[in-house]
Amino acid sequence: MKQEISEILNAFKENQKNRGRLLINCPDQPGIIAAVSKFLFDHGANIMESSQYSTNPEGGSFFIRIEFECSELQEKKEELTSEFQEIAEKFSMDWKLSLVSELKKTAIFVSKELHCMRELLLEWQGGDLMTDISLVISNHEDAREIVERLGIPFHYIPATKENRAEAEAKQLSLLKEHEIDVIILARYMQILTPDFVAAHPYKIINIHHSFLPAFVGARPYDRAYQRGVKLIGATSHYVTDDLDEGPIIEQDIMRVDHRDQVEDLKKIGRSIERSVLARAVKWHLEDRVIVHGNKTILF
Amino acid sequence: MKQEISEILNAFKENQKNRGRLLINCPDQPGIIAAVSKFLFDHGANIMESSQYSTNPEGGSFFIRIEFECSELQEKKEELTSEFQEIAEKFSMDWKLSLVSELKKTAIFVSKELHCMRELLLEWQGGDLMTDISLVISNHEDAREIVERLGIPFHYIPATKENRAEAEAKQLSLLKEHEIDVIILARYMQILTPDFVAAHPYKIINIHHSFLPAFVGARPYDRAYQRGVKLIGATSHYVTDDLDEGPIIEQDIMRVDHRDQVEDLKKIGRSIERSVLARAVKWHLEDRVIVHGNKTILF
Amino acid sequence: MKQEISEILNAFKENQKNRGRLLINCPDQPGIIAAVSKFLFDHGANIMESSQYSTNPEGGSFFIRIEFECSELQEKKEELTSEFQEIAEKFSMDWKLSLVSELKKTAIFVSKELHCMRELLLEWQGGDLMTDISLVISNHEDAREIVERLGIPFHYIPATKENRAEAEAKQLSLLKEHEIDVIILARYMQILTPDFVAAHPYKIINIHHSFLPAFVGARPYDRAYQRGVKLIGATSHYVTDDLDEGPIIEQDIMRVDHRDQVEDLKKIGRSIERSVLARAVKWHLEDRVIVHGNKTILF
Amino acid sequence: MKQEISEILNAFKENQKNRGRLLINCPDQPGIIAAVSKFLFDHGANIMESSQYSTNPEGGSFFIRIEFECSELQEKKEELTSEFQEIAEKFSMDWKLSLVSELKKTAIFVSKELHCMRELLLEWQGGDLMTDISLVISNHEDAREIVERLGIPFHYIPATKENRAEAEAKQLSLLKEHEIDVIILARYMQILTPDFVAAHPYKIINIHHSFLPAFVGARPYDRAYQRGVKLIGATSHYVTDDLDEGPIIEQDIMRVDHRDQVEDLKKIGRSIERSVLARAVKWHLEDRVIVHGNKTILF
Repeated sequence: MKQEISEILNAFKENQKNRGRLLINCPDQPGIIAAVSKFLFDHGANIMESSQYSTNPEGGSFFIRIEFECSELQEKKEELTSEFQEIAEKFSMDWKLSLVSELKKTAIFVSKELHCMRELLLEWQGGDLMTDISLVISNHEDAREIVERLGIPFHYIPATKENRAEAEAKQLSLLKEHEIDVIILARYMQILTPDFVAAHPYKIINIHHSFLPAFVGARPYDRAYQRGVKLIGATSHYVTDDLDEGPIIEQDIMRVDHRDQVEDLKKIGRSIERSVLARAVKWHLEDRVIVHGNKTILF
Repeated sequence: MKQEISEILNAFKENQKNRGRLLINCPDQPGIIAAVSKFLFDHGANIMESSQYSTNPEGGSFFIRIEFECSELQEKKEELTSEFQEIAEKFSMDWKLSLVSELKKTAIFVSKELHCMRELLLEWQGGDLMTDISLVISNHEDAREIVERLGIPFHYIPATKENRAEAEAKQLSLLKEHEIDVIILARYMQILTPDFVAAHPYKIINIHHSFLPAFVGARPYDRAYQRGVKLIGATSHYVTDDLDEGPIIEQDIMRVDHRDQVEDLKKIGRSIERSVLARAVKWHLEDRVIVHGNKTILF
Repeated sequence: MKQEISEILNAFKENQKNRGRLLINCPDQPGIIAAVSKFLFDHGANIMESSQYSTNPEGGSFFIRIEFECSELQEKKEELTSEFQEIAEKFSMDWKLSLVSELKKTAIFVSKELHCMRELLLEWQGGDLMTDISLVISNHEDAREIVERLGIPFHYIPATKENRAEAEAKQLSLLKEHEIDVIILARYMQILTPDFVAAHPYKIINIHHSFLPAFVGARPYDRAYQRGVKLIGATSHYVTDDLDEGPIIEQDIMRVDHRDQVEDLKKIGRSIERSVLARAVKWHLEDRVIVHGNKTILF
Repeated sequence: MKQEISEILNAFKENQKNRGRLLINCPDQPGIIAAVSKFLFDHGANIMESSQYSTNPEGGSFFIRIEFECSELQEKKEELTSEFQEIAEKFSMDWKLSLVSELKKTAIFVSKELHCMRELLLEWQGGDLMTDISLVISNHEDAREIVERLGIPFHYIPATKENRAEAEAKQLSLLKEHEIDVIILARYMQILTPDFVAAHPYKIINIHHSFLPAFVGARPYDRAYQRGVKLIGATSHYVTDDLDEGPIIEQDIMRVDHRDQVEDLKKIGRSIERSVLARAVKWHLEDRVIVHGNKTILF
């Protein structure tokens, strides 16, 4: 199985070897697109997809995401990066050039509820989630068998309020060792310390089981039941220091009715949580999410 | 025009003259359905549609809504009502027998934003909203022309924090004079006093421009914009003393994205508000909504 | 793992041991509900949920589904069944009394595309699909590992146009041996013979990868791409002799746009197929689907 | 009323006086974006929103839509148009430069069912549909009062199979006289001749009452009812010579169930038709729809 997944990932990397992505965020001013598109043209890169957004034409921020094809891209990446520096400085750009063939390394954190992790693994096995799942960390043993069977390292790290510092030290060491790019909290029921969060700015993706900002905090399905809402939802967001207040990446809802008890809401909710988290992760992996203030721009 | 609408309503009343509805709410116990269905059978009524719900089989509440056909129903209504009393007492029922042909009388309250009222009038003219719209009350003159053109009495009653008592006195007098059954707040931007609300229990339907309980209170679109949500919504609910806390009848949402400014959210929101309110009103008019605690049961 | 699933299923069976379902289909006439509800009341059964539908009050068909609780139900099943016979004859009923604790036995047929089977197994492991998955049959070896790991027997039966009779003979023998109640075609890419279909009336559930009746037949995503539709869908239906013409159980759609190539439509489609099939199977397992002519009634 | 609408439209035109749109369609090749963005930059235009699409990077078609702000745009339009000619020729562009402040002139065709026209007028009165509705043409008198009350000329032109040539001659003369840019068939139940269609390429927008390609042709709701679908829909498309086969602009669906009779499907369908047509018209008016082959690109 592990071998089959490797084959899928390798075929993808080979297939996409000349595909690059350029993400830019800078103060808006005339001429940015002209300069960037001229640069790519001059270097033999053909723009395949491009999305942009200005918060406000007069003195606002400008964002652009470009996907391009460029022959011999892997060899030319360094040259492109170095030569783009001049434009970047002229326009005060915050920017990133990445290769589609360089898959992001992912760590999944999970507790006892496994449906979100299962969805990610299901999509991954089917070739619909292009990433290198490097390890799974859990404060329970429940996920071990599923994870190891796919050839993914599984680490059981008990985590409680009391041992938080020690547990996070172990986690950080593993994340560093594996050079992790993205941390996915797939219903991981522990709070992370501000230090842990600060070490991974906009690289930790959480799934919250309500349509935020409704039902921030604990037991959202119980509270949805009490309030008698006709829709329940889930929200995937980047983790920041403020609980459930980070930039929202994706949300979705489903209808419920008066016959649904709390247990039914949880069951329906599981299927929303699964798909919302999977979409948010996919967009992040494709560099489609840009954080701006406490919001996201989705390209 | 007014005549065309009268014709639609009269045809409906004639067509539905033998159609009745029985709504029951009582403590759950075995034998309720058996007793009610035997009663209807013995009186020559044929059950056309029936929905029921028990909150909890052991000692909970039981709700049932039955639509039936019964020849000569208008003549037999009194007899049915009087003879059902025995069963009602045996099972401690809170109940209501109504005739579909006896249209509810509706008053619409509106301010300057007319889209919700326009939707209701559009559905009404098209024969999709079966009610007698008896009057429109507004604290502005904007709606007058549209309303009067359809032959509906329009009453301009200025309303501010200062003259609330006086304005409500006028409103109450009109509602009484017209024997109003339902009050629809179609974006009426004034707060009603507890006395006004108490005089119309679960008969005032409001549309709030957010998916409650998110963004309770003022300026929900501005706050949705600030929070960076990916979905905006609207909620129709019965008005109670707690602002935006009454039993929810219907909610819906639409997707928005980072390009949508507050003005765009409002525009998109208008179309959600319109359809959510129209659905809630329709269900109320068809006696499909039963309030239980602070929730609604929709049959 | 297999043991964990057994534990989930056993806990469910114990928990639901007194829960029964009564499904009835008969010519409509007054007094049916009165008779049935009196029967249940007299036998100490308490109605928990009830749904009914009449195609046409005058001379049409009547359908009802009742869920009830009755102490010692497993012991009393035979008695209830035998005594209900009298009412059934009086009203010419086609009827079925079943126990929730007697799980249906399921066979999954699959080919090379595994996403639908994976979804069913994921829901099953999570306790969201209550059935006894007795075996998986495939004309390819791809699914073997996943299936056997869960302790489910896997049978590889090569199937081509040429060996259809022989292959179906093997399949039928396995289905008989395992006393299968439901056959799920989870993207099984072989056509079944009329004899095979006739042997399992309304017991074979298929997933078709389009919103029927659009794109009946082969290659629906290619044709959807050619037509430039803005929505793609999937349809789950009972298999009959007419290809893709059987009674529809469930359908759903997702939005697509001009950027989506055929491969993207397939990817998006996979996630619709998964959830549509899972919902249809769940409703079938809960006896919520009644076939009437070429349509389904969903309770 | 008419005056209020004029005020809304005039405020919009004043507000948007410096906003322009550039739509381009040409064979794909490197350097297009670089050239266009340099041109706009050199002429003092600031790109506010830009969307592009390539059918196929190697030898395919390239499409771009740019919204820009440029001071004194109304005065500079001619200069921009003339100077862009050089780039257009170099890249073999099919292109159009338009001013947001130059509202398109619209004619609505309607028959007896008025809900789609009412929706358009409702959005228009609310400032959500920016166009100059120049006239309404109908083969019935039903719409006259509503239309004339808003100060829009109404023309009753009886249309039957027999008098088609004569009726279309009158229609064409009116369309010419009013210099109509867009024709909206808001449930106009007459077939247009190939000559009429050919005279308005991709300028006639129809609403078909099914999710095409399901239920092409007449009586789609009756056929949807017969087939037992669980979703019904509506499709807005450009009219071409092939009935219901033109490029699709927008589609949407709503759920239905076994209780819905044909009349219910029509009622539910009316609300889908209304919103689908309104969205399609809005996108067309904002130059967001580009036809490519028999499909649309929506920017």
